[in-house]
Amino acid sequence: MKEIPQILSNVKAKSPLIHFITNYVTVNDCANICLACHASPIMADEEAEVEDIVEACSSLLLNIGTLDQRTVRAMLAAGRRANRLGKPIVFDPVGAGATTYRNEVVKLFLKELELTVIKGNISEIKNLFGGFTDTKGVDAAESDLVTEDTLEEAIRFARELSVMTGAIIVITGPIDIISDSRQTYIGYNGHPFMPRVTGTGCMMGGVIASFLAANEGQQLLAVAVAVCAMGICGELAYGKMCELNLGTGAFRSLIIDYMSNMDVQTLEQKLKMEIR
Amino acid sequence: MKEIPQILSNVKAKSPLIHFITNYVTVNDCANICLACHASPIMADEEAEVEDIVEACSSLLLNIGTLDQRTVRAMLAAGRRANRLGKPIVFDPVGAGATTYRNEVVKLFLKELELTVIKGNISEIKNLFGGFTDTKGVDAAESDLVTEDTLEEAIRFARELSVMTGAIIVITGPIDIISDSRQTYIGYNGHPFMPRVTGTGCMMGGVIASFLAANEGQQLLAVAVAVCAMGICGELAYGKMCELNLGTGAFRSLIIDYMSNMDVQTLEQKLKMEIR
Amino acid sequence: MKEIPQILSNVKAKSPLIHFITNYVTVNDCANICLACHASPIMADEEAEVEDIVEACSSLLLNIGTLDQRTVRAMLAAGRRANRLGKPIVFDPVGAGATTYRNEVVKLFLKELELTVIKGNISEIKNLFGGFTDTKGVDAAESDLVTEDTLEEAIRFARELSVMTGAIIVITGPIDIISDSRQTYIGYNGHPFMPRVTGTGCMMGGVIASFLAANEGQQLLAVAVAVCAMGICGELAYGKMCELNLGTGAFRSLIIDYMSNMDVQTLEQKLKMEIR
Repeated sequence: MKEIPQILSNVKAKSPLIHFITNYVTVNDCANICLACHASPIMADEEAEVEDIVEACSSLLLNIGTLDQRTVRAMLAAGRRANRLGKPIVFDPVGAGATTYRNEVVKLFLKELELTVIKGNISEIKNLFGGFTDTKGVDAAESDLVTEDTLEEAIRFARELSVMTGAIIVITGPIDIISDSRQTYIGYNGHPFMPRVTGTGCMMGGVIASFLAANEGQQLLAVAVAVCAMGICGELAYGKMCELNLGTGAFRSLIIDYMSNMDVQTLEQKLKMEIR
Repeated sequence: MKEIPQILSNVKAKSPLIHFITNYVTVNDCANICLACHASPIMADEEAEVEDIVEACSSLLLNIGTLDQRTVRAMLAAGRRANRLGKPIVFDPVGAGATTYRNEVVKLFLKELELTVIKGNISEIKNLFGGFTDTKGVDAAESDLVTEDTLEEAIRFARELSVMTGAIIVITGPIDIISDSRQTYIGYNGHPFMPRVTGTGCMMGGVIASFLAANEGQQLLAVAVAVCAMGICGELAYGKMCELNLGTGAFRSLIIDYMSNMDVQTLEQKLKMEIR
Repeated sequence: MKEIPQILSNVKAKSPLIHFITNYVTVNDCANICLACHASPIMADEEAEVEDIVEACSSLLLNIGTLDQRTVRAMLAAGRRANRLGKPIVFDPVGAGATTYRNEVVKLFLKELELTVIKGNISEIKNLFGGFTDTKGVDAAESDLVTEDTLEEAIRFARELSVMTGAIIVITGPIDIISDSRQTYIGYNGHPFMPRVTGTGCMMGGVIASFLAANEGQQLLAVAVAVCAMGICGELAYGKMCELNLGTGAFRSLIIDYMSNMDVQTLEQKLKMEIR
C-alpha cells in the first residue's frame, strides 16, 4: 500500500502534541516512545487543567493502568472536552476485568465518551464487553489468545464491537486485529518476548495516539501501521538484545531505539499486514 | 543446599502474580525486575480496588518510598485483606525515621498488619523499632552498617525483632541478614556500587515478594535466595558496566538484564550464603 | 576559572541530600542523575512530612510537570519551610503558559516563595512573567529561541527578571543563559538531540539543585557549571549513541552514564562558558 510510508512521514512532519493521562508505572516509556515517533507528549492529570491541555493537543490517550478516583475524574473531563472538540481519543483499558471498580470505570467511559480507538489484549477487550475470561492481572489469559484457528471468530467479534461503539477496535496478541465495522487489518509483527517487559502495551497505545493525530483522513490505516511499527521495533530489539547477549533491561531501551530510528524503508521491509 | 535451584525454578514455573503498592520513583524498575524473575507484577493503589487485586495475587509488596495519605489508606486495606486471606506481605519501610509522619505510618502498619517480611537497611530497621540513628534520607547511616565485627550483635537484633513481630527480618547492607526467630542466613552477595542507582533496594523487595509467592513451604530460604540473587545481579552488572566502559545508567539496566537471564547454574556458582 | 573544578569536587565530597517534589514522568531519571552527581535524592510530596524532609536536606527542587492540587500544597509548604531555614530552592516551571491553572500556580509560587533559581526554556520563562509566546506543550516555541542575534536582548531580559525576583535566572536552549542581576554566564554546551528524550530539562534541574547545595558561597557559578555539565553529558551521549548505532533509548541512559563518570578533566576540557 503506497499510503503506508506517508502515514509515518506525516507523524514526523507534523510532530503532533499528544495528551496522555496514563499510569505512573510506564509513563516515562510512553513519553519516550512518543518522542521517538517524532510526536510530542504532554502528561497532565489535574482536573483543573486537563481541558486546556486537550485544547492544545491533537489526540488524547487514556490508560487506566493505575487509575484512582482523582485521575478517573480527570480522564472523564478530558474525554468530554476531546469529544466536544472532535479530537480523537485512544482508550487503553489496562486490566479490565481485574476488579469491580475497574469494570465500573470502563463501563462509565464507554457510556460517557465517544472513543476513537479501543485497544487491549483479548482478555481486556472481552471483559470490556461483559465477557468472562480467565484474566490474570494485566496479561491476556492463555486460553483467550487469538490463533489462526480462532482468527475469523475474533475478527467478527472486533467488527461487532466496532458497530456497537463506533470505535476502531485493536486486539493485541500474537496476531493483532485492527478493525472498524467494515474493514479489518491483520498484523503479524511483534515478538513473544515483548510481554517480558512492562509497558510494551502502554507504549503501543502512545504510538497509536501519535500516528492517529497526524493522519486525520485515514484513521484505520494509521492505527494499523502504528500497531505494526511497534511490533517491528519489538522484533528488531529482540534480535539486537540476543546479539549483544543482554536481557530485558536492554530490550526495553532497544524498543525505543528502534522507534527513534524507524524509517520508511525499514517499515516497508518489515511490515507484515493484510487486509480483509 | 539442594533446595536452592528449586526456589528459582518454582518462580519460573508458577509465574506468580504480585501486587505492588509502591513509590512512583522506582515503580517501573520494580515491575521490570519482577517480570525478569518470571513473576507478574500488578501495580494498583486505589482503595476501591486493592482488595480485589490482593485476592487475585500470590503476595503483596508495600513500599512507603513516596507514601501519601491516600496510598497509606490503600496499603492498610490491602494489607488487612492479605492477612485475612493468609497471603504473604513484604514490607519495605523506605526512609523510616526520616519524618514524624513516616514513623507514625510505620508504627500503624506494625500494629495493624501481620507482616511476613520486613526488609530495610540497618538504619530503617533500627528506626522501625524506636532506635536512634544518624539516618540521612533513604540511605543507611555509615555508623550503622553491619560489619564482621558487629555481625553477631546484628543477628541477635534481627532475631529479637522476628520474635517480636513474627516476621522474617531482612537487614540489607554490605552483609545481608535474613532471619526468623530460629534461623539466620548471612548473604555476602552484592556490590558497593548498587546504591549509586535509585531503586536497587526497592527492586530487591520486588524480588523477595516474587520468590516468596512461589515457595510457600520454605519462606525463609526463598527470601534469602532472593536477596542473594539480587546481589549477584549487582555484581555481574558492575563487571559488565566496567567492561563496556559505561556508567550508572547502564548499571541499572544491566541489573535487570542479569535477573532476566538468571539460571540455576549462575545462581549456584555465585551464591555466597551461610546459615547460622 | 580555577574555581570550576572545585564546584564539581564539592558535590562529590559533600554528597548533599536533595529534596525533590517533581513530576512522575521523569522522577526516576531525576533521582538517578542526582545520584550520578554523587548527591543523594529524596522524593517526598506528602504535605504532612515535607517540612521534616526539607529540614534534613540541603536544597529543594520544585518541578510542576505533572502538578495537581495536592502536590501544589506540598510544594508551597516545603518552599515556605525552605525559606524560613534559608535553604536554596530551584524552581522548574515546566509547561508554564500551557494552562490557566498552571499560570495561577506559578504566580502563587512567585508571590509566596523566595526562589533561589528559576530555570526554564525561553517560552516558560517568558510565560512566567506574563509574556505571550507560541508555546506548544512543554517545549519552547521555535520563534522564541535565543540565537546570537537575540542574545543581548535575552541577557537583558534575564537580568531584569533577576532584579524583579532576586533569583538566579536560567534560560535553557541552544545557548544557555545563567544570570543574576549583576553577572551573566553564557553556556554553549548541549546538543540539539537532547529534547528527543523526555526529562533532560528536569534532570538539569536536579543537577542544578545538587551543585547548588554543595557550593554555598558561589551560587551563580555553581548553577552555571551544573547547566554546562548537563550539556556536556548530552554531547558525549550523542557521540556514543551514534558510535553504537543506537537511538533515543540508549541516549537517555548514556546521559546518566556520562554524569556518573564526570571528572574534573572532562569538565575542564569540554566546558564552553563565557562570562559577561
